[in-house]
Amino acid sequence: MASKHGFRKSPADLLSVGPDFVLDQVDSSASPGFSGKKRDAEQVLAERARKLGSLQEQLFAESKFGGSKSILLVLQAMDTAGKGGIVSHVVGSVDPQGVQLHAFKAPTEEEKQHDFLWRIEKQVPRAGMLGVFDRSHYEDVLIHRVHGWADEAELERRYQAINDFEAELTASGTKIIKVMLHISPDTQKERLTARLADPSKYWKYSPGDVTERGFWPQYMQAYQLAFEKTSTEIAPWHVVPADKKWYARLAVQELLVAALESLQLSWPEGDYDLAEERKRVAAS
Amino acid sequence: MASKHGFRKSPADLLSVGPDFVLDQVDSSASPGFSGKKRDAEQVLAERARKLGSLQEQLFAESKFGGSKSILLVLQAMDTAGKGGIVSHVVGSVDPQGVQLHAFKAPTEEEKQHDFLWRIEKQVPRAGMLGVFDRSHYEDVLIHRVHGWADEAELERRYQAINDFEAELTASGTKIIKVMLHISPDTQKERLTARLADPSKYWKYSPGDVTERGFWPQYMQAYQLAFEKTSTEIAPWHVVPADKKWYARLAVQELLVAALESLQLSWPEGDYDLAEERKRVAAS
Repeated sequence: MASKHGFRKSPADLLSVGPDFVLDQVDSSASPGFSGKKRDAEQVLAERARKLGSLQEQLFAESKFGGSKSILLVLQAMDTAGKGGIVSHVVGSVDPQGVQLHAFKAPTEEEKQHDFLWRIEKQVPRAGMLGVFDRSHYEDVLIHRVHGWADEAELERRYQAINDFEAELTASGTKIIKVMLHISPDTQKERLTARLADPSKYWKYSPGDVTERGFWPQYMQAYQLAFEKTSTEIAPWHVVPADKKWYARLAVQELLVAALESLQLSWPEGDYDLAEERKRVAAS
Repeated sequence: MASKHGFRKSPADLLSVGPDFVLDQVDSSASPGFSGKKRDAEQVLAERARKLGSLQEQLFAESKFGGSKSILLVLQAMDTAGKGGIVSHVVGSVDPQGVQLHAFKAPTEEEKQHDFLWRIEKQVPRAGMLGVFDRSHYEDVLIHRVHGWADEAELERRYQAINDFEAELTASGTKIIKVMLHISPDTQKERLTARLADPSKYWKYSPGDVTERGFWPQYMQAYQLAFEKTSTEIAPWHVVPADKKWYARLAVQELLVAALESLQLSWPEGDYDLAEERKRVAAS
């Protein structure tokens, strides 16, 4: 990694949320640790996509011979922050057979009859997979806090339940990477305006986006609290400046590469007699 | 499409299985309809990937405003024929949020307690999705015929059940594209040998592949019969020569493009008052 790929320092270190983190002090237009410009970004993204794809293939291969490891990327953000772009441009570079993507919408009537983690647990990645949550269990401590759909005691219970859930998931072999894509209100306004100016983007717009936009400070406070309660050593949050889409994509790509590298993957031996199988093929 | 993309004639026409089709007469090393060489293929694939991605996005967008259409690509082949390469290089160019991929393995104990279509029906694509079956319900008339796991009466019942199922699926809005990737036994031997010569490919090899290879003529006969029974007007089979991987990828990509184009997609109007929403965003 490092300099030859444009990052002077690892985004995993630079962007992770520690004890003294203050969301209000993050510059959403910055590009921390990246020494290149936008014009370099496309090339770096393509180069590192090969690395990411190769690591993911090893993860998948290991699972075919008993490996139990997986990756879970949790994406949270205000509307228009670029979750979809991360999915298409970063996750999209990986072989689809190794990707398990789930977009959580408003819960169904059945889901509402269960605790908030019920629908989440059903979507955790299988061994060998790069799982992606587009929104997640964090909605239950974000929008629920903002709109008062849960009281303080219930929210506290949920933070604890989330930490327990993530600890168990980690213990069973899943490496969790939590990402908040951080944009400014002005950036959101530009992007909403752009969606309403282009017929090929109308479908991405929802009137509810503007409604939620009216609660911006409350959302930022809810994120801050969620970070304080759930940015743990095993599953830290990362706040990724996302006014520059190209930066956010590079940074999340590096977070995934670093997570996969931390698993110390290798190509599995087969569970068959190699010499014998070579003979069988030759004779066939 | 056509000449500027390298195809003189549509693969949808050239490769479809009609009433007089004879599998034995297909040259698996050919590249029907494609006027370019291997060196042109990568560029054409990249160009057409943009077209495919754009069409798929329209399909997805329509579904957000009531559209019920979807695509189902059924992939069948002998081992090493390149299903995985189609998934990674053709399907992989599409935004993952619009892809619903399922690889069917040997049925579980629970699945065996149900009729063969039970597990299939659970995996049909949602509205807006490009569904991909890596293997499918056709295993139940291919490997089952080859090994005599079902008798002739049962196989006849299954052909009929498949045609009924596919007719219903089509009527409910799903366009089905059935593809057999066709390789020669020599090509398979080369590829199996290559897998056993490269530690990064050991995981792709299974001793069962050589066992099944011993039944090559029986498999070809089972495919021939499946084509005769289930290549229907609404869901025709396509036999894609696949000794040249680059050709198979281009051809399947064109089959998908043609299928999407046949749906006559368009960008949906929003279900909101555009002028009003522009005002709301401006005032926010």
